[in-house]
Amino acid sequence: MAKRISERIIFKTKFFTIKDIDLDFNGKKATYQIIEKRNSALIVPINKNNELVLVREYFYAIDEYQLGLPKGRIEEGHDELTTANKELQEEIGFKAGKIDKLGIVTLSPGYSTQRTYLFLARDLTESRLKGDEEEDLEVITHPFDRFEELINQGKITDARMIAALFLAKRFLSQKWNQK
Amino acid sequence: MAKRISERIIFKTKFFTIKDIDLDFNGKKATYQIIEKRNSALIVPINKNNELVLVREYFYAIDEYQLGLPKGRIEEGHDELTTANKELQEEIGFKAGKIDKLGIVTLSPGYSTQRTYLFLARDLTESRLKGDEEEDLEVITHPFDRFEELINQGKITDARMIAALFLAKRFLSQKWNQK
Repeated sequence: MAKRISERIIFKTKFFTIKDIDLDFNGKKATYQIIEKRNSALIVPINKNNELVLVREYFYAIDEYQLGLPKGRIEEGHDELTTANKELQEEIGFKAGKIDKLGIVTLSPGYSTQRTYLFLARDLTESRLKGDEEEDLEVITHPFDRFEELINQGKITDARMIAALFLAKRFLSQKWNQK
Repeated sequence: MAKRISERIIFKTKFFTIKDIDLDFNGKKATYQIIEKRNSALIVPINKNNELVLVREYFYAIDEYQLGLPKGRIEEGHDELTTANKELQEEIGFKAGKIDKLGIVTLSPGYSTQRTYLFLARDLTESRLKGDEEEDLEVITHPFDRFEELINQGKITDARMIAALFLAKRFLSQKWNQK
């Protein structure tokens, strides 16, 4: 069994903390590096026409515009549900009458501590909050039952978003079965 | 439209490079931080009994054992397919007679450059290579058509793995339809 013995911060900015982690694998010692980053909430919003509501967004690490689901980091003192509702209003200009949990995912839990809380948002009504985005986000709708087209076309690539979409599809089909 | 104007390394280790990125949003300047990390390959291996072949692995950033699909970073001079076949042999002790591409996903493309190449591996035959893991990985099988149980139970949380499993299911059902 692996065990974490000690850890120390080797670099820290307002975005990331990098730590060296000393591990013991049954007597064998090793040091690895991890990135600590705040958790985030990510939302699959579906409007009353059964369309997915997306934003066209600049992803600066890959230097590319892609479609994205609303998301944001969970600030100190906020919980994931409050964050989900805030991001919906900031990014797509809607609030949700109904929010369901889809799950919690990690991103490369070998080196990143970040967890993302996934939600399905329905019963959307207009409500806008001013966000911290550098540019106004272009809002795009796409039939939810054809979301796989966006994955096939490479318009959505974030693994969390792809996982969230398939989990939303499953959630909705299970609900359907229960009726 | 956002445009990257300049970038500089502010921290670098053998695992990560952190850069400040200067951006221009239609005349408005902003600086963000990104993490550069080598791309990786991740494989959904299915054996002749239609079972998923998984490893029980220590994920050191979240300090937890979970089930994982074989994966590894693509080293300098290697391509994603070579890496996939190498990781299969190192982590689960099989090589694949048939490998299909499932897609390429990003992980939080707002701040991480990393891309993961997803593969489906079948026609598995025994072949072991010595890997760089600190401990021998415990290999576990689970019926592929019941992989969602592992997600529901929180035994698999990595968003890339969840995306890969749903994409594999879709790939196999499309193949089936084409017959």
